[in-house]
Order: sequence, then structure tokens, then C-alpha cells
Amino acid sequence: MVNYPYKKKTTNNSVSSPANRGMNFEHAVNCSLKHYEEQNIALMIKRSTPIHIVKVDYKNNARITDAYFEKESTTDYNGVYQGKYIDFECKETKSKTSLSFNNISKHQILHLEKVLMHGGLAFFLIHFVYFDEVYLLKAEHIISIYQAKTKKSISYKEVKDLGVLVEQGFIPRLKLIDAIDKAYFDEKEKIKI
Amino acid sequence: MVNYPYKKKTTNNSVSSPANRGMNFEHAVNCSLKHYEEQNIALMIKRSTPIHIVKVDYKNNARITDAYFEKESTTDYNGVYQGKYIDFECKETKSKTSLSFNNISKHQILHLEKVLMHGGLAFFLIHFVYFDEVYLLKAEHIISIYQAKTKKSISYKEVKDLGVLVEQGFIPRLKLIDAIDKAYFDEKEKIKI
Repeated sequence: MVNYPYKKKTTNNSVSSPANRGMNFEHAVNCSLKHYEEQNIALMIKRSTPIHIVKVDYKNNARITDAYFEKESTTDYNGVYQGKYIDFECKETKSKTSLSFNNISKHQILHLEKVLMHGGLAFFLIHFVYFDEVYLLKAEHIISIYQAKTKKSISYKEVKDLGVLVEQGFIPRLKLIDAIDKAYFDEKEKIKI
Repeated sequence: MVNYPYKKKTTNNSVSSPANRGMNFEHAVNCSLKHYEEQNIALMIKRSTPIHIVKVDYKNNARITDAYFEKESTTDYNGVYQGKYIDFECKETKSKTSLSFNNISKHQILHLEKVLMHGGLAFFLIHFVYFDEVYLLKAEHIISIYQAKTKKSISYKEVKDLGVLVEQGFIPRLKLIDAIDKAYFDEKEKIKI
């Protein structure tokens, strides 16, 4: 959920003031990843927004004076955990019933398919603002529904049934590694934290 | 080897016109990775340059009018191959004898150490312009010499002895996957290309 200034990723304004209730999702994810990095548990980093630079003022300490956001971004985060490549995208919705596919680009789907093809772990982190719940949903699920083209969203119920609830706490704010362990790793392989 | 306009990564001007001899290293790496991606062999992507955005002109199609390059970048590329997390940095030198540590930042070393700690594959791709040779050198080697602080460079001989020569060809320009296989994967595990 890179904050492109031209595009809001939150959809369906059914809650009047989400900023005042629950968490700042992106901030919570970033803080949690920082915690995992500091504790040497995992290394997952937010990708920089792809920007096309047009003009740089070299006389002024290489200040960029003209640039624009590139449209074809991939996903928000990638990194490594237990040797495995991890790649995920954060999505937030104010809807009580579903996550719309409107803000999932074809390009992101293609990217996640490639990650899966090469044996990486690919998933979405979905924040349902109304319930203040975050789910880890394997990319496989969204890809198959997206590709079927019979629906334009994935329901809250489907996310709840197919995904793993990411527990919330103080530090880390989002217990993402617990959710990854639950979704991907056997008890035997599970790292002791 | 992200092309920061304020910093040239090529060191030691011992060859007068390297641009006219041998390859454009960054271009060769990018083309090779594109080939591997298109052939579904591996997914390795150049990171976007981290840029801090100060001002965006929303009236002009979200054009960025003031921004600057962030100093703390990580490495040039990362991705996934056979399920493993891959992370590498490209360095180029015109010197016949060594690669100076001048353009390897402490921050990059720390990043690569973390990648290794979590079981990822971390390496440098080093282009010796004079010989027009590219080597894959595991990050472990550079890290240990860098940390010892007794030397300020790694010699051409060390790179040749410890690294794997990346064969050059037409498509892909750099046979990077062959080098990765040689450096990290057993014959048995080796993917059939």
C-alpha cells in the first residue's frame, strides 16, 4: 500500500472517519517489520515507489525538480524469512462485506503469479477497517477468483474462511510472522520465537 | 548499480574510455534478468531508487516538483529463484588490480549480512572493465574482508579465485543463472534449462 498521492487504495466509504478508529494500517505493518528486522526474525522491506526522473538540478545538491510516478508497480513489500522469498501486498477496505478488485492491478496479479511459479511465498494482507481485522490471504486464492472473472471482489466471508487472522498486539503491532508460520510452515519447521 | 546522478560508482580512472569498450554493465544485467523472467527461469528485479518526495503538483497530474535521493539504499536487485531469496549488488571498476571498498557502503554490508542471516543468497556481481570480465562473488567473502578492516579493497586475484566467472553470450548477455547454479546449487538440484 504505497501511498501514491494520486490514488487512494481504500474503497467504499461506508465508515465516516476510519482514521479515528483502529490503526493506521501501513504504519502498523512498517513498525512490525522493523521489529522483526531488529529482532533478527525476518527481513522484509517496503519497496520504494517507482519514480521516473525527468530533471535533476545538479547545482542544487542533485535535487529532483521534475519526476512522475510510474504506473506499473509490483507489490508493496518483499524480503526473506527462513531462506524463503516473501512477497506481499497490503490492501485496505472500509466495506463490511468485501474487498473490491478495483484496486488490484492486472500487473500485480501477474507479478504474484511469477513469485508463486518460482517457489516464493506470495500473499495479501487485508485490513477490514470496519472490523479492525487484518487477514493474511495466500495470493493463490485471490488469483484464482480474479482470473475466473466471474466476480469483481472477494467477500469478507471468503477472506475469513480462506485466510489467517493476523493477531494484533503492542509489539509487534501485527503478529505477521505468527500468521506466516500458520499459513506456510509446519509446526516442526516453525522457528522458535 | 543504481545510477545515482550524484555519485559515480566506477572507480580508478585507469582506462580512458571504458564506455567505448566492452559492455554497458547495468544494461547487460537488466536485459539478462528480463530474459530469465520471460523464460520463467527466475524473477529478479531492480529495486527502485529510494527517493524522498517533498512536493507534488496535484494540479499537474501528480507531477513531482521537489524530491531528493535518500542516502541509505540497500542493494541493486532482489528476487526469487527456486524458492530462494536472492539479493545482489553490482559493482564496476576500471582498475586492473582490485575493487575498492570506497563505493560499498556500511549500510549495504549490514543489509547483506541480514540477508545471509535469514538464509537468503547474497552476492556481488563485479565487472572488471579492463578485462571485460564479470564475477559472481558471494557476499560472505567481501563481508569478511570488509569487516577485518585491514584492507580497503579486494584484489582482482581474490575475486578470480573466490568467485565464479559469469559467462557472456548473446541471449542472455550474462549467464547469471549458470553462475548462481555453480555457486549455490548442487548438480542434483540444478534446474534444467
